[in-house]
Amino acid sequence: MDCSLVVDCSLVVHYCDRRGRPGENRSVSCKRVGREGAILAAMDQRISLITLGYRDHARARDFYAALGWTDAVAPDDEVVFFQAGGMIFALWDRAKLAADSGVQDGGGWGGVTLAYLVGSPEEVDDVLARAQAAGGSVPRPGGTTVWGGYSGIFVDPEGHPWEVAHNPGWVLHEDGTVSLS
Amino acid sequence: MDCSLVVDCSLVVHYCDRRGRPGENRSVSCKRVGREGAILAAMDQRISLITLGYRDHARARDFYAALGWTDAVAPDDEVVFFQAGGMIFALWDRAKLAADSGVQDGGGWGGVTLAYLVGSPEEVDDVLARAQAAGGSVPRPGGTTVWGGYSGIFVDPEGHPWEVAHNPGWVLHEDGTVSLS
Repeated sequence: MDCSLVVDCSLVVHYCDRRGRPGENRSVSCKRVGREGAILAAMDQRISLITLGYRDHARARDFYAALGWTDAVAPDDEVVFFQAGGMIFALWDRAKLAADSGVQDGGGWGGVTLAYLVGSPEEVDDVLARAQAAGGSVPRPGGTTVWGGYSGIFVDPEGHPWEVAHNPGWVLHEDGTVSLS
Repeated sequence: MDCSLVVDCSLVVHYCDRRGRPGENRSVSCKRVGREGAILAAMDQRISLITLGYRDHARARDFYAALGWTDAVAPDDEVVFFQAGGMIFALWDRAKLAADSGVQDGGGWGGVTLAYLVGSPEEVDDVLARAQAAGGSVPRPGGTTVWGGYSGIFVDPEGHPWEVAHNPGWVLHEDGTVSLS
């Protein structure tokens, strides 16, 4: 391991209670060893694109259209891109996405849930109703949560879950962006 | 089906070639029938939160810390929130996330891939090297793509893939947001 590069990191975790009131802070440190000669640029804290895999192109696309999403951009008959705030949301053939991503498809849900924040409990119920009307399922209807908010879940026709939530502990800005405090 | 509400939608798809040059536009329409009395609010085109499920809390958290992510907020010893541009990125116990999301866990990858856009092919290679040094795998190293860009894939220690890409057809703004054109 001579000449290896080392990534040192020091993560400060700000603990808070379930309503967002600050508690103790703890520092976490870790050390990872990289390959020789690697240039270890930091990664910014941002996500540019989320791609959801589909098995049925029209079913996936029409579901999001029925939610009210518009102005899709399609480079071909397989991929659909939507501008989603400051990021891009894409739909692509699930088998091709798996191959492109270098992973094996587990066939079901794989540990990722998206969420959409709104300004009130009533809006949570409205969006869940629209998602159900558009062909999604609602395995968890709107209700109060242990963290002091109100939320429910819809699952799109391709099996991807979205939580729809009102979280009074976070800040939902007028432009649709969200801040932790 | 008397008194049901109907969602009408009309989606315009702007076709373009793989380098982003405009082609034909096509209209897609669809009709969905909702439950009686539903108030069908449109959903804005935005994503507020992405939660990735983990099997090992410290392994997941320390990987993102080693990428350079900082200022995590933790309501308890299970959930970690990071501010990620105008949205929130969370890590949570995978079994609890599945239960909360109303889905069955397929056990592997489930059809979702994230992407991180950077300003040059060199930055793609740098981020992939850092991800590998931090404990991720790189099933597809950086290389030119059929869509005229340069990208590669890293997979985090919990099995979640990220494409790291330079796409000259999209606009990467100084604040880290991305536009389709």
